[in-house]
Amino acid sequence: MAVVDADGKLHSAWGDIDRPIFPRSAVKVLQALPLVESGAAERYGLSDEELALACASHGGEARHTAAAASMLAKAGVDPAALECGTHWPYYDGAIKAMAAAGGQPTALNNNCSGKHAGFVCLGCLMSEDRAGGQDRRAFLKGYVKPEHPVMREVTAALQATTGYDLARAAVGTDGCSIPTYAIPLRHLAHAFARVGTGTGLRAGHATAALRLRQAVARAPHMVAGTGRFDTRVMQHFGERVFCKVGAEGVYCAALPTLGLGVAVKMDDGNTARACEVVMAALLARLLPLAGDDAAFVQPLADVALVNWNGIEVGRLRAAGALSPTR
Amino acid sequence: MAVVDADGKLHSAWGDIDRPIFPRSAVKVLQALPLVESGAAERYGLSDEELALACASHGGEARHTAAAASMLAKAGVDPAALECGTHWPYYDGAIKAMAAAGGQPTALNNNCSGKHAGFVCLGCLMSEDRAGGQDRRAFLKGYVKPEHPVMREVTAALQATTGYDLARAAVGTDGCSIPTYAIPLRHLAHAFARVGTGTGLRAGHATAALRLRQAVARAPHMVAGTGRFDTRVMQHFGERVFCKVGAEGVYCAALPTLGLGVAVKMDDGNTARACEVVMAALLARLLPLAGDDAAFVQPLADVALVNWNGIEVGRLRAAGALSPTR
Repeated sequence: MAVVDADGKLHSAWGDIDRPIFPRSAVKVLQALPLVESGAAERYGLSDEELALACASHGGEARHTAAAASMLAKAGVDPAALECGTHWPYYDGAIKAMAAAGGQPTALNNNCSGKHAGFVCLGCLMSEDRAGGQDRRAFLKGYVKPEHPVMREVTAALQATTGYDLARAAVGTDGCSIPTYAIPLRHLAHAFARVGTGTGLRAGHATAALRLRQAVARAPHMVAGTGRFDTRVMQHFGERVFCKVGAEGVYCAALPTLGLGVAVKMDDGNTARACEVVMAALLARLLPLAGDDAAFVQPLADVALVNWNGIEVGRLRAAGALSPTR
Repeated sequence: MAVVDADGKLHSAWGDIDRPIFPRSAVKVLQALPLVESGAAERYGLSDEELALACASHGGEARHTAAAASMLAKAGVDPAALECGTHWPYYDGAIKAMAAAGGQPTALNNNCSGKHAGFVCLGCLMSEDRAGGQDRRAFLKGYVKPEHPVMREVTAALQATTGYDLARAAVGTDGCSIPTYAIPLRHLAHAFARVGTGTGLRAGHATAALRLRQAVARAPHMVAGTGRFDTRVMQHFGERVFCKVGAEGVYCAALPTLGLGVAVKMDDGNTARACEVVMAALLARLLPLAGDDAAFVQPLADVALVNWNGIEVGRLRAAGALSPTR
C-alpha cells in the first residue's frame, strides 16, 4: 500500500508499490471526471445523489436504480443504452425484496450502472456537440470500447490524474465491459492526493474532482449502500475522507485535509475483510482522530468475527506498522 | 499442497506442507466416522443420502433440509437439537425461493446441518447406551463443546486418521461452533489416503470410511448441491474420487484407485476459484484420464472468466508444475 502527497512524494509504503495492479472500481471517481468537466453534469442537471452514483459500486437498492434511471432520462435516453450488463443486486435485502416481488434484475441493478449512466450522459453531450446533433443511440453504441470517443475521454482522465502511461499498461476488460488498466499503487495514491487537493490537475479536472467529492460527501449512501464501509465512513467524515473500494482487494482514498492519497491492494483479493480494516487503521493513523472520530473508527479497525451462533471466533485487526498502539 | 499415500509416503508437494492450517469443512468425512463406527447410522437406519449429508457443506436446498430433518426424526429429536446456528441457504436459487415464499431460514438451512444431525444421532445412541437411558435432550446439550462426549469421539477420529497430536494443535471455534484444529497438509493428505484405502485405520474406521465414501458416491448431490464442484466431480467419478472443500481455500480428496490422499490450501482463501482449478488439474495429472473423463475434467481445469455481458475477460488454469501440457 502507498500513501503519497499531491507532489508525488511518498509519505509511507508497505510492499511493492511499483508493481502494476488492476484498480478496478476503486478509480470510478477518476473515470467520472469527464462527466463534470465536459459540462454534461451541469447540462443535464445531475443532482448530488446522481453524481455520487456515477462514482459508485452500489448495492442495486431502489434508490440506486432510481437515480441511474433518472440520469439517463435527463439525458433523453432509456436504460437500454446501458452496456454494463445485468446482475442481481449486491445488497442482500434488495435480492430478497426482488425475489419476494417475483422480479428480475435489469442493467440498472448492476453495481456499475451509475458510472455507466455517467458515461452515457457524457456521450449524449458529445453527440449533441457534433455537427447536426448526431443520433444519440447510434453515437452511444459501443461506448465501453477503448476506441469510442467516450472511453477515450475516460481513459485520458485516468492517465492525466495518475500520470501513468496507459498506452504501455497491461489492459483487461472489466466486469462491466470497459477497459481496466494495471497501474502501480504509487501512481494511484498520487492520483487520489491530486483529486483531494486539486494540486497537479488541470483546472477542469480540479473543479470536477471537488464537485464529485462534495456530491459523495452529501450523498454517501449512493456510493455503496446500506451497511457498507464506504457509505459509513463518508457518512461520518463527510469531505474529510473520500474512499472507494475496488474488486479483488483494492482501496483508494483521498484525505484532503492532509493532502494525501492512499492506495491499498490486499493479496487475498477480498474486498470486505483485511482491506477495510487496513483502510480504517490508516484513517486512525493518518488523521488526527479523537473523540467521536476515534470512537467511530476504532471498531472498524478491530473487527470481531462472530459465527452463526453469535460466538466471537476471531478478530481482524491491524498489526505491526499499522497497529494503533505503535 | 500435498499428495501422500496411505503409508504416509510423500508423492508430491508444493509449498510448506508442514505448517498447520485449519481444514474447516474439508474434514467432515473424518468427523462423520464415529456416526457409522458407533452403530448409530445403522441403528437409526440412515440412508445413503443422509450419510452423504453428514459429510456435506450443502446449499440448503429443499432436499438437503429434508434429509437433515429426517436424520433427526429417525433419532427421535427435532431440529431444536441442532447447535450449528442459522444462516440463509448458500444456494442462490434456494435464497430466492425462500424470499419469494416469505420464508425465513432455520438451522436446517445451515450448510453444516447434516454434519450436526450426524453428531446428534451419535449423541442419541450414546445417551441410550448410558445406564437407564439418560434423557436425550439433556445429554445432547452442548455437544459442540470440545469436552462433550460426542465431540471427544469426533476429535478422536480426527486424531486417529490424521495421526496428528490435536492436544498440542492450535484450536479455534468453527462457523458452526465445533472446535477446528490446525493440521499440516501432509497429515491431512495422509488421512485422506487412509480413508480412501482403509490402510492404517482401525477396522471400525476403515469400514465407516468405505460406507461414507459409497454413500457420497451414490448421492453426490447431497454433499454440496446444484452446480457445485464436489457434486459435479463425484457425479462423474463415483467412488473413484472423494473430494471435499473447506472454508478459506481448502480442498481434501481421496483417490482410492491410486491409494493417494490430497490436501490443498490456497493462500487467497477463496473456495471457488484457484482451489477448484487446482483440484481439477490434480485429478487430470494423477488419474489416468482419457475419453469421457478427460473431457469432463478439462473445462474444470481451464475455466473461462466471463463478465456480466458474457464476454470472456480471463481464464483460470493450472500453470507450471500443474500444467496439463507439462
